[in-house]
Amino acid sequence: MLVDYSKIIDYFSQTQIPENMLKRGQLVLNEFLKPIKILFEQKNVPKEPWSDDQIEFLLQTLSNMDTDKDSQASRVGEREARIASRLHLKTSAGFCHGVGRSGFLTAPQPKAPGGSIMYELTNYLARNFLKNFGLPNISKVIVIPLCTGMSLALSLGALKPEFRSKKTKILVPQVDHKSLLKAIALMGFTPKIIEGKVFGDAVRIPIEDIKENLDSECFAIISLTSFFPPREHDDIKEISKFAKDKKLLHIIINAYGVQSPEWMKLIRSAIDAGRVDVIIQSTDKNFLTPVGGAVIASPREEVITKISQAYAGRASATPVVNFLISMLSLGINGYQKLIEQQQFNRNLLEEKLRETAKTINERVLEIFNPVAVAVSLDNLKKEQLTALGGALYNLRVTGPRVYSSGESIFGTCCKYYPTPYIVMNAAIGAKQEDVSFAVERFEKAYKQVVL
Amino acid sequence: MLVDYSKIIDYFSQTQIPENMLKRGQLVLNEFLKPIKILFEQKNVPKEPWSDDQIEFLLQTLSNMDTDKDSQASRVGEREARIASRLHLKTSAGFCHGVGRSGFLTAPQPKAPGGSIMYELTNYLARNFLKNFGLPNISKVIVIPLCTGMSLALSLGALKPEFRSKKTKILVPQVDHKSLLKAIALMGFTPKIIEGKVFGDAVRIPIEDIKENLDSECFAIISLTSFFPPREHDDIKEISKFAKDKKLLHIIINAYGVQSPEWMKLIRSAIDAGRVDVIIQSTDKNFLTPVGGAVIASPREEVITKISQAYAGRASATPVVNFLISMLSLGINGYQKLIEQQQFNRNLLEEKLRETAKTINERVLEIFNPVAVAVSLDNLKKEQLTALGGALYNLRVTGPRVYSSGESIFGTCCKYYPTPYIVMNAAIGAKQEDVSFAVERFEKAYKQVVL
Amino acid sequence: MLVDYSKIIDYFSQTQIPENMLKRGQLVLNEFLKPIKILFEQKNVPKEPWSDDQIEFLLQTLSNMDTDKDSQASRVGEREARIASRLHLKTSAGFCHGVGRSGFLTAPQPKAPGGSIMYELTNYLARNFLKNFGLPNISKVIVIPLCTGMSLALSLGALKPEFRSKKTKILVPQVDHKSLLKAIALMGFTPKIIEGKVFGDAVRIPIEDIKENLDSECFAIISLTSFFPPREHDDIKEISKFAKDKKLLHIIINAYGVQSPEWMKLIRSAIDAGRVDVIIQSTDKNFLTPVGGAVIASPREEVITKISQAYAGRASATPVVNFLISMLSLGINGYQKLIEQQQFNRNLLEEKLRETAKTINERVLEIFNPVAVAVSLDNLKKEQLTALGGALYNLRVTGPRVYSSGESIFGTCCKYYPTPYIVMNAAIGAKQEDVSFAVERFEKAYKQVVL
Amino acid sequence: MLVDYSKIIDYFSQTQIPENMLKRGQLVLNEFLKPIKILFEQKNVPKEPWSDDQIEFLLQTLSNMDTDKDSQASRVGEREARIASRLHLKTSAGFCHGVGRSGFLTAPQPKAPGGSIMYELTNYLARNFLKNFGLPNISKVIVIPLCTGMSLALSLGALKPEFRSKKTKILVPQVDHKSLLKAIALMGFTPKIIEGKVFGDAVRIPIEDIKENLDSECFAIISLTSFFPPREHDDIKEISKFAKDKKLLHIIINAYGVQSPEWMKLIRSAIDAGRVDVIIQSTDKNFLTPVGGAVIASPREEVITKISQAYAGRASATPVVNFLISMLSLGINGYQKLIEQQQFNRNLLEEKLRETAKTINERVLEIFNPVAVAVSLDNLKKEQLTALGGALYNLRVTGPRVYSSGESIFGTCCKYYPTPYIVMNAAIGAKQEDVSFAVERFEKAYKQVVL
Repeated sequence: MLVDYSKIIDYFSQTQIPENMLKRGQLVLNEFLKPIKILFEQKNVPKEPWSDDQIEFLLQTLSNMDTDKDSQASRVGEREARIASRLHLKTSAGFCHGVGRSGFLTAPQPKAPGGSIMYELTNYLARNFLKNFGLPNISKVIVIPLCTGMSLALSLGALKPEFRSKKTKILVPQVDHKSLLKAIALMGFTPKIIEGKVFGDAVRIPIEDIKENLDSECFAIISLTSFFPPREHDDIKEISKFAKDKKLLHIIINAYGVQSPEWMKLIRSAIDAGRVDVIIQSTDKNFLTPVGGAVIASPREEVITKISQAYAGRASATPVVNFLISMLSLGINGYQKLIEQQQFNRNLLEEKLRETAKTINERVLEIFNPVAVAVSLDNLKKEQLTALGGALYNLRVTGPRVYSSGESIFGTCCKYYPTPYIVMNAAIGAKQEDVSFAVERFEKAYKQVVL
Repeated sequence: MLVDYSKIIDYFSQTQIPENMLKRGQLVLNEFLKPIKILFEQKNVPKEPWSDDQIEFLLQTLSNMDTDKDSQASRVGEREARIASRLHLKTSAGFCHGVGRSGFLTAPQPKAPGGSIMYELTNYLARNFLKNFGLPNISKVIVIPLCTGMSLALSLGALKPEFRSKKTKILVPQVDHKSLLKAIALMGFTPKIIEGKVFGDAVRIPIEDIKENLDSECFAIISLTSFFPPREHDDIKEISKFAKDKKLLHIIINAYGVQSPEWMKLIRSAIDAGRVDVIIQSTDKNFLTPVGGAVIASPREEVITKISQAYAGRASATPVVNFLISMLSLGINGYQKLIEQQQFNRNLLEEKLRETAKTINERVLEIFNPVAVAVSLDNLKKEQLTALGGALYNLRVTGPRVYSSGESIFGTCCKYYPTPYIVMNAAIGAKQEDVSFAVERFEKAYKQVVL
Repeated sequence: MLVDYSKIIDYFSQTQIPENMLKRGQLVLNEFLKPIKILFEQKNVPKEPWSDDQIEFLLQTLSNMDTDKDSQASRVGEREARIASRLHLKTSAGFCHGVGRSGFLTAPQPKAPGGSIMYELTNYLARNFLKNFGLPNISKVIVIPLCTGMSLALSLGALKPEFRSKKTKILVPQVDHKSLLKAIALMGFTPKIIEGKVFGDAVRIPIEDIKENLDSECFAIISLTSFFPPREHDDIKEISKFAKDKKLLHIIINAYGVQSPEWMKLIRSAIDAGRVDVIIQSTDKNFLTPVGGAVIASPREEVITKISQAYAGRASATPVVNFLISMLSLGINGYQKLIEQQQFNRNLLEEKLRETAKTINERVLEIFNPVAVAVSLDNLKKEQLTALGGALYNLRVTGPRVYSSGESIFGTCCKYYPTPYIVMNAAIGAKQEDVSFAVERFEKAYKQVVL
Repeated sequence: MLVDYSKIIDYFSQTQIPENMLKRGQLVLNEFLKPIKILFEQKNVPKEPWSDDQIEFLLQTLSNMDTDKDSQASRVGEREARIASRLHLKTSAGFCHGVGRSGFLTAPQPKAPGGSIMYELTNYLARNFLKNFGLPNISKVIVIPLCTGMSLALSLGALKPEFRSKKTKILVPQVDHKSLLKAIALMGFTPKIIEGKVFGDAVRIPIEDIKENLDSECFAIISLTSFFPPREHDDIKEISKFAKDKKLLHIIINAYGVQSPEWMKLIRSAIDAGRVDVIIQSTDKNFLTPVGGAVIASPREEVITKISQAYAGRASATPVVNFLISMLSLGINGYQKLIEQQQFNRNLLEEKLRETAKTINERVLEIFNPVAVAVSLDNLKKEQLTALGGALYNLRVTGPRVYSSGESIFGTCCKYYPTPYIVMNAAIGAKQEDVSFAVERFEKAYKQVVL
């Protein structure tokens, strides 16, 4: 009934355009459209990156299946994806109906067949992606239009014990990041925090300490991969065994851990070794989307179904579309290259910081971290540490953290951390110049401060 | 230091372009840019609609204040709003950093000064808008990147009694819509539902019944404005007095009620008469944005602050930007016109349905509703009612609801509703043709079914 | 080989999305894509307007057939449509190779199969459009990426007598518009201008005067339809007969005449009655495109072929694409409505000017013109006439012409025109408010000037 | 009167956003807007490339000075830049009024102050660019919305001897490219072609032969820089002296010569040594725009003025905007890098072709050319040469030319050229892979053909 895009040139065979030229046109068009077919057939992340034009063509096709685009419809519902401006089509990529239905995120939305296909496809790609990058043993994945913290809240709400349970506590190896604690508080639970301890330069939470803290009111445990020095990742495998043993819900916060094969490996073995219910990762930090989404994976399908059903209402399609855009514009090979660049940058960062540390008589701290590096700042006084932060800000270095041991302990994840330090990241998506200029500017700022 | 856009032509005074022509150019440019100045100065919804170009110019200006646009920066944080594709700039309107900081939605984000200004501005406009359209007595408003249901969940989480309270129940005048009940369940609370009763054609929940249901475990009550027939809005003023009297948290779900001055008036008097903590409205249903946002208002500023602080993490900026786009592209006068069109369409819908009802020997049900109209379907058998729904679907009428008294009672908000009926909406943003064609097609479908 | 867009949902039949929902999605998508098929099959202007999204989808499809989009190509030519910025894709709608080849405008360009299809299609639409709106008796039409004046130059260059001919003169019924005379001069020809004469209010060029001016050096005659008062259109039918009789090349300048069925009728009869070689119309003034194109039609195919072959080199595709965009976004019915609106506005203009004329003791001049109306300004002195122009400019009335008989005779197309006047247009695409506000402001300006 | 963008944050000083954060926002915004100020002040090509967003911001600003954007205007002209679709704003970058007025291209257009500024600015940049890249001794430059061939026609039309001159011939050192000869024919002139002669591998037109061909009917001479092997560039300096001596109009066709400092040097010395009236260069081939524009330069301002005034009518603004976009998105440094890449690629091409030639027992022809390289194909028979072209086409090598001595002599610019050959270009904007893959595929195709 419609134009057959494989034979588009047939319509022009009677024109003065010669056949071989038409065939070339068809060939080039096929090159453009072929990836869409492969995507529809395989529902996997493409090997090679798509162009923005290809992505827009796909989004345009799917969003034009939604009923708000139907020029023949009479709309007498109270929600019909009516919009005030065409700009809304840009911000929603055409998916004005959002995702979800009656409080079931992945439920197909009758008014949005195209949006429903888009979401389903995106979830397939998310699973395929994680399977490719370190988690072959997961079963189901959902892209959630909420960030990491709220995704934890949603997961807790969905998987909490039945009504009026006495169990309201959650074991939390110390984390200073506010979002996670807020998520727990929002849901009405109490975190039972196990304090970090200093081992050499590193801060770790010994599994024994965690085990000791278990009491009968605990129903869940949280563990973490990606972290800032001096805190190292948790002993996730042991926590996983412990969770299985004690029938605890086990949620892994893998905020920006997908970029690191080492962190991913921890999760993979944890799944194999014990109990992991939910693994939550940020879309912006791992997949280079704008802020606002998370990917929730589980080795058990029913867990994801429960989470999807716990969401109260419909949601913006944009965070989902953003993840889809990233998957298509990166492709497996594109992400692999980004990982390699990250690893190169991480090494460069350490190397350059070691050089700088030598010249200022400081040292790189010995802490395992595939993304970040910390350098001691023993020679600086409290005021100088404060001044250093300001100087870096003025030099337009974004993201470094300066810790002054005399001040707030916040960020070290322990009671007392003796060494003042600065942390910098070589995270995925950073450019080599980010790293090299940042270290140069750090050295410059340091010297300003010391003078 | 920068170009002074008021005197842009001065740079070209030495060219061959005559002065009067340059002045005309400046005049036209001023016309384009003037509304931006007024917006910045007054922080109110503009009287007249902006053009899409003007809106984009504003968004472009603000989003270019965020540090991810700084070509001179060295980025060594783990979240720097790096994006995989330029398409992400479209879906986020350039606000890749999202909104919020460390689990405080309205906290300024140091890496996103432009995004922070954008959000603050949007919240001012939201308050100004609601004050203009029926709620002069509110104090603070926040646009939330969550839909109505999740906004209820967030509000409950933020305003719930302190930890380990025995109070876990919420009074709910019967509502069949799943999202709200899911929101309550998600947060671990129990709804105490007060059943609807039939008064003539209308279903109402008498205030006495509500009062009777109060017990010591209840800490909150929910009331509703916008509703589908046969359920009418709640007696919000009396509920408000009751909430004040009994120290109950009172949340009004005003899902798509902003479009109706009559529903808004109920809320205004409720605020004056008793206790209203939170009023929640959907952005897509009231303000013609894509799905995914809500506007939460309160007569007390600290309530909004608590809700803003309860959010765990950062969030997508898109639902906020969408609301901003709607405000600017509609303007006060544009929305006023939409309201008038809605009222015209609502009357037209009733009139046309009355005519149709007469020809098929049915009647318009007597139920107060400024948006929807219901018609009895007494002459149809169960199978015919089912067939009617299907026929309307095939005729591409979206949004009507057909109730068959023999089947599920769902949607009537009561135990037994004797009259089968069909409901249609003339909601804000609908076109006159939506209404007239829908009724025509209903008549057509009816006749198909009867034959 | 590619995705079959008629069965796109088949790829998703194994998902959880129910079949009836998928079918609805396909139905809506079909609605979106159907017009493309009809266009390809019929190569006619669509009856109904397309949406911008549909137009972009078509342009995207075609431009992705050009070899500069081929990711598998190795490019070792000196012109490969390489571009410095993606913005160039917007300004060229993706057709970076332009149109034409080796100085033959409509020759298919081997590197641009998509662009070649686009151009061929556009020329079909142009012919179909003119056949629909008054010229069923033309044979071939070409859209030229040059404005009216340069199109005249090109036509003269293409159709001039063979080399070293003694014939270098062209008969021109007086026209004061510079472009046409410049076109003649550019090509090295001499216009033999036949002066206009005043008949009542109107300025006409009697056919007898034209005939008298013929000499042996003349090889062509130009005639004109659309004109400003006081000059009326030429007696095209008689000129056509005369051209046939005397073997003169006859070019009709129909600059903005397509909007008027009356002017078009003149051309139609001229074609039937005698000799018409070329009819030139502006794309911006008739078809609401940006400036820069013309449509050249001829009753004889070989004339168009010659013109196409006379063009030296390739050309920007943009003016061609602009015409295509207009055709699709207007459709036959859309243009018909615009014509009706134009006629309404023209009547309104005359009516309002008559009222105003009465109040200021002036009169509407009796001149045939389906677009413009002129009013006498007998009561104003020379300085007041100058002041009136300035006052209108300040009141932001664009486009009116004020003639002061004491000053330059320019614009009247005759030696002496006694009556000072003002002319205003109600051209196609103008809004009713343009007309009504312009007359109001004229009255205001008049009163300012008189005081 | 408008927002002062240097102090945009002052409007938000009373909000909760801290001052240092606001200041950072202003700093980042300044970085974005600063280049616009520098451009306005200096009217030179920027040193560093602009981002697409910056370019769009500039175009948006300027195009919003045109009167068609004035919401307060009443439009009663017949041409008011009314458009049928918002897509026209994209293709015209908002400059719907085009450029030029009454047949004077650079005349300011009263309805388009912004477009007039844009054009004037662009012409300044064009001059500045050429002065930077090899022609410090030019005086005036104009960007013409016509390609090279039509620009030659326009120049000839503008600069031809007065009416009815007996001088109608133009000396043309042999060129096989059709556009230029068509341009001459279009204007009614006769080319007097001086045949090329073979010197070793190269084809040249000796200055003596040119001098011999002069007769009293000649009024102009054309010379060429950029050329395909085996034809080399003309002896432009000697032609220039000859033109001065004989008072001939001298037009240099520098079609894609701007990319080569060596070709540009020829022109520079020609200007200094004798008479050069006009130098014409293509915008797409030199400046990476879509097809459709040319840059015309002259050492004498009045020459450009004449050409500008000869254009009959207004023209599309798009080719002008395209040139502006290229200038801003490349910058001086960006173009310098492209030149270096071109030189690298040219060397690579020669090197790789030498290797290949060795393996197939052929040789690189000894012809001076900074862009292209030719290789002999002595070992192939006529059918094989034809087959080679086909094979390369199928291998998606675009742009190579295969010459078979037995067939048409076209393209060699001489009477008889004994050696069959293939030519490939390493033109500006090509990627290294274009060159290396093309040579590989050539070798592959060669072997296919030989087998």
